[in-house]
Amino acid sequence: MKQTNVSTRSVEKWGVFELELQGPAEGNPFVDVELSAEFIGPGEPVKVAGFYDGDGTYRIRFMPEAEGQWTYQTGSNCPALAEKTGQFTVTAPGKDNHGPVRVDGKFHFAYADGTRFWPIGTTCYAWINQEPELVAQTLETLAASPFNKLRMCVFPKHYSYNRNEPPEHAFPPAGSTPEDPGHSTPADWQWDFARFNPSFFQNLDRCVERLGRLGIEADVILFHPYDCWGFANLDAETEQRYLRDVVARLSAYRNVWWSLANEWDFMKQKTAEDFARFLATIAEADPYGRLCSAHNGAKWFDWADSRVTHVSYQGSPKNVTKLREQFSKPVVVDECCYEGNCHERFGDLTGREMVRRIWDTIVHGGYLGHGECYEQPQDILWWAKGGKLHGQSPDRIAFIRRLLDEAPTDPLQPCKCPRAATLGICKPGEYYLFRIDCDRQPVHRWIDLEGGPYKAEILDLWNMTIEPVEGQWSDSFLFPLPGRDFTGIRFTRIEDSSA
Amino acid sequence: MKQTNVSTRSVEKWGVFELELQGPAEGNPFVDVELSAEFIGPGEPVKVAGFYDGDGTYRIRFMPEAEGQWTYQTGSNCPALAEKTGQFTVTAPGKDNHGPVRVDGKFHFAYADGTRFWPIGTTCYAWINQEPELVAQTLETLAASPFNKLRMCVFPKHYSYNRNEPPEHAFPPAGSTPEDPGHSTPADWQWDFARFNPSFFQNLDRCVERLGRLGIEADVILFHPYDCWGFANLDAETEQRYLRDVVARLSAYRNVWWSLANEWDFMKQKTAEDFARFLATIAEADPYGRLCSAHNGAKWFDWADSRVTHVSYQGSPKNVTKLREQFSKPVVVDECCYEGNCHERFGDLTGREMVRRIWDTIVHGGYLGHGECYEQPQDILWWAKGGKLHGQSPDRIAFIRRLLDEAPTDPLQPCKCPRAATLGICKPGEYYLFRIDCDRQPVHRWIDLEGGPYKAEILDLWNMTIEPVEGQWSDSFLFPLPGRDFTGIRFTRIEDSSA
Repeated sequence: MKQTNVSTRSVEKWGVFELELQGPAEGNPFVDVELSAEFIGPGEPVKVAGFYDGDGTYRIRFMPEAEGQWTYQTGSNCPALAEKTGQFTVTAPGKDNHGPVRVDGKFHFAYADGTRFWPIGTTCYAWINQEPELVAQTLETLAASPFNKLRMCVFPKHYSYNRNEPPEHAFPPAGSTPEDPGHSTPADWQWDFARFNPSFFQNLDRCVERLGRLGIEADVILFHPYDCWGFANLDAETEQRYLRDVVARLSAYRNVWWSLANEWDFMKQKTAEDFARFLATIAEADPYGRLCSAHNGAKWFDWADSRVTHVSYQGSPKNVTKLREQFSKPVVVDECCYEGNCHERFGDLTGREMVRRIWDTIVHGGYLGHGECYEQPQDILWWAKGGKLHGQSPDRIAFIRRLLDEAPTDPLQPCKCPRAATLGICKPGEYYLFRIDCDRQPVHRWIDLEGGPYKAEILDLWNMTIEPVEGQWSDSFLFPLPGRDFTGIRFTRIEDSSA
Repeated sequence: MKQTNVSTRSVEKWGVFELELQGPAEGNPFVDVELSAEFIGPGEPVKVAGFYDGDGTYRIRFMPEAEGQWTYQTGSNCPALAEKTGQFTVTAPGKDNHGPVRVDGKFHFAYADGTRFWPIGTTCYAWINQEPELVAQTLETLAASPFNKLRMCVFPKHYSYNRNEPPEHAFPPAGSTPEDPGHSTPADWQWDFARFNPSFFQNLDRCVERLGRLGIEADVILFHPYDCWGFANLDAETEQRYLRDVVARLSAYRNVWWSLANEWDFMKQKTAEDFARFLATIAEADPYGRLCSAHNGAKWFDWADSRVTHVSYQGSPKNVTKLREQFSKPVVVDECCYEGNCHERFGDLTGREMVRRIWDTIVHGGYLGHGECYEQPQDILWWAKGGKLHGQSPDRIAFIRRLLDEAPTDPLQPCKCPRAATLGICKPGEYYLFRIDCDRQPVHRWIDLEGGPYKAEILDLWNMTIEPVEGQWSDSFLFPLPGRDFTGIRFTRIEDSSA
């Protein structure tokens, strides 16, 4: 995918066109050199910022959104990088390339080609900041998992079970660093915040790209409070340069989402104004308008801001209804505690409880977020470092993904069956997926549907089975249930064969 | 226990002294005849109302609260019943006779002899209104159960799963009754509300007495809304006469509690003023000040009223803290849904969820209420009709009762261990019973106790095991847990053997 200014390249629609240029390595290119390119093709021209990637190499990454012939011309305050031109062809997207995910209507997501995207998220906050073997294992696990979205931090994590130094840092050292045995306390560490460590960010690029190849959206967390290095308290100038650099590097990857912060309100040195500034910087720097939100700790974020595309929520799934009403945006429940056995209360749910909360999320009209915190040797807990999955919920989440894959492709809406005191999601008159509360075991419930007839199936949400129920069902009826917990029901309208 | 006015009887302290008198059967003795007796003994004189029991028989029941010699003298507007005198001896209470239960301090219950009473309640609303064989089976089941308190209605119940006519009614028929095949709709039924059916109430007496012999408190529900006979909508005069009759019959039984109503606010024809009147009537008629409350539907009762001894609550156990703070009275969670599989949402909890809610109740400082709604032939669901228990929770409740029986006899208070995010009950510095949230499975938690050393035991609240943990534990420590759900911990202060 490397590209010099030779002009005969081709790239898929929604793929990454990358322009590599050589320029000055002396001075401080991160600060001194401005670089951008204008891309002109079938649609509106797009102006994209470049970035310095170390060793005299500069890059400009671009995601074309229209097929056909494109040309570009660079601009720079550095003559060696300015006025480079070229052209390339944008071809039709490949089979698994549906484009970037966007908000669809009020509460849903879809890829740019219209294919529904139903987030099935998990969480490995600090996976990119682990040793390469572990990073590779995480990708292997994800490849075999049901997940299609991953929450991940740029900066390393300092927290319970997260005491290992990452292989490298975002900024080059300027004096003592954590690697110096004699200077092991954060107060001693010094970083050159006027420069980046390109190798750190190249690893970030690769990780995002590899997730993309697995069909996994990268929910990139730009800031977070779990810090001992000073990265949660950068000065405003560094923050702006950091944001522009990350956006220049990553925004062309169609699987990127921006998450301004994890637990934004726990970043005590930052104010709501700082976060508004981050939003403005990203909105200005990201030519594609990638999905963008911020995740709350105790205090909700201002998800009403027009630059925020969706709600990134930590808390009880039961609040999804309220969040939908208040913000009229898709609600992603990124964190409702995690399956595990660790001593932190957010990470010791049984698998059953994790699955229960995930179903709660779905039937309230939200999108689920999984995480796993089983204690492991070297503290390799999935939630932070990745590695392997050990829990009971991923298989049940795969079953959920199967059910959603089999559902009508139209947006589904949350629904309730008041007489059954049962929630679900549906396409009214055609399809209903009900979930009986997981801790209940009725032998029947009154069901009310719109019209009919429907065929019915009993779902065992724990044992992951689907059993057809004899008969056809219309309007209102007392429906037999198996009298066990974790029961779901699927009603699918029977096509009128006489029509 | 029958007593004519021969004067050589003896009765246990807190037992029932019953005076049987013969008088007029003609006219309407229920309305025409006033009867009472004054009992004079070691303490204050007590005036007790009598009641007409049919066939010319009148009774006065009295529970003496002091040992020694007592005399009595009747008063009546009927010469045949007036000025009867006699005397009797009150002996020490028998082994299992601890007296009536009363509020102890602010939030606890104790028998009159000081023995702690920890309510372990269940619910058979309509058990007295079933055929005798079923009534007998219910008593047999209760005898083998862990329960020491039973919620039960006087009037029969008309509701889902409750469509059978009771063997008899509280009022004699006056025209058509449900027994008449041609008049099967409630609008046709007519009752003589100026009279009672003594046989109905004799059955009530026997049921309460038999519960007493099993050591079970009878939480007698005087009114309820589940009615097709007109008993939820009596005129005020009948209500007053009914209350006085029931109080005269039952108040001498030391195991009686008064519950003005089940779901008082669902009795749409009754107002808060009606319930205040009921409270006043009972306060006036009950010489012993039996425990008295009313159970809520959607709207809380005025539990602050000084005549209300405790909170009889339906709802989430998590509200117990608030209820304690607001009312400064013991909080009995009589209903937090029931174990079962029926189509009513209040009765389809898994056994696990029932046990979870019961533990939630305990660790918030409340007293538990069990019920069971497994569908059975002839709709004999325990919650309404009694019969047999089929669920998984009674055994776990027996385990809870064992733990409470083994706890210090002093009042226990709810406590929390903030670092462990764990609730429990304790006697600070001596005894702590913690319950890890049932849907969590940590392998350790930080525990903070007052002083020490303590011995520790791991409780499996589902499999009902108690395993000692090696070592002694003091102050603050990271405590190993088995990494499974339904885990409790018991810390018991080790006596200082050097002292």
